[in-house]
Amino acid sequence: MNLYDATVPIFTKLLHQAETWLDKAVASAEQRKFDPEILLQARLAPDQYPLLRQLQSAADQAKFTCAKLIGKDPPSHPDTEKTIPEIRARMRSIIEYLSTLKREDFNGAEERPCGHLWMQGKKLRGGDYLDHVALPNFHFHLTTAYAILRHNGVQIGKDDYLGPIPYLT
Amino acid sequence: MNLYDATVPIFTKLLHQAETWLDKAVASAEQRKFDPEILLQARLAPDQYPLLRQLQSAADQAKFTCAKLIGKDPPSHPDTEKTIPEIRARMRSIIEYLSTLKREDFNGAEERPCGHLWMQGKKLRGGDYLDHVALPNFHFHLTTAYAILRHNGVQIGKDDYLGPIPYLT
Repeated sequence: MNLYDATVPIFTKLLHQAETWLDKAVASAEQRKFDPEILLQARLAPDQYPLLRQLQSAADQAKFTCAKLIGKDPPSHPDTEKTIPEIRARMRSIIEYLSTLKREDFNGAEERPCGHLWMQGKKLRGGDYLDHVALPNFHFHLTTAYAILRHNGVQIGKDDYLGPIPYLT
Repeated sequence: MNLYDATVPIFTKLLHQAETWLDKAVASAEQRKFDPEILLQARLAPDQYPLLRQLQSAADQAKFTCAKLIGKDPPSHPDTEKTIPEIRARMRSIIEYLSTLKREDFNGAEERPCGHLWMQGKKLRGGDYLDHVALPNFHFHLTTAYAILRHNGVQIGKDDYLGPIPYLT
């Protein structure tokens, strides 16, 4: 086992899936005759991040998870996106970054101490970081983005979340 | 690495966290003078599962993930819950089941073929099942449950989702 398998292909696939939700969101807005950009500011509660920030957060968690696990600095994304094409470009940029990572970069990642700024200097074993923080937080933001679109009438389903499943042949 | 670490302690902690959301939901309903049981039928879209079914689905995914990975049948839960005490009992029953599992039960789990009835006979390697299906689906339903409560004004935050983090000391 190598933590590459639990990270790079999963984040790549799910960020790609989120782009397909945006395709459906834009088509739905056009059919219902409203500006699809309005959806980026939609939220489920007034004190919760809107769709744009949920997507930024999920994409950031994908990027930082891999960077922390391999012990290298990731590319910077300064949260300046305001439009659907801009958030798409952000997600694609992170998918592109993920594509540069190799399995061997993750050798020993499960024991590497990992931390974020919000942890105020504290760190976790890499394996614990992945299981207790990185994957839950990634899915937390990505599912909330999905839920905001569902709540706003975009016709997506769980298969659009999970994406293609690598069955044994 | 052993898949026990990515499953049993995570599911146990997060199902326990979900019980704390129900504590806050009941307190919030009492303060706002409505029957907290109403929340179990709340949903974010008319063609999406309500809170009750989201919690059943998350709890089921926790149970089945471990059972499939260790190659044993799990206890049966026939989806008969209708009330908050009943769904709490369901979650506690699954936490109790998880507590009976041992690390060595998961030896070799990453290569064990795993499948659900909805996969119509197809199976995945255990490691792929965990990364591509089980964890995404668990978080998908648990985050949706969380989002339904947030949308209905229950004061919970991301720390209530993630729960205690096992930092290095």
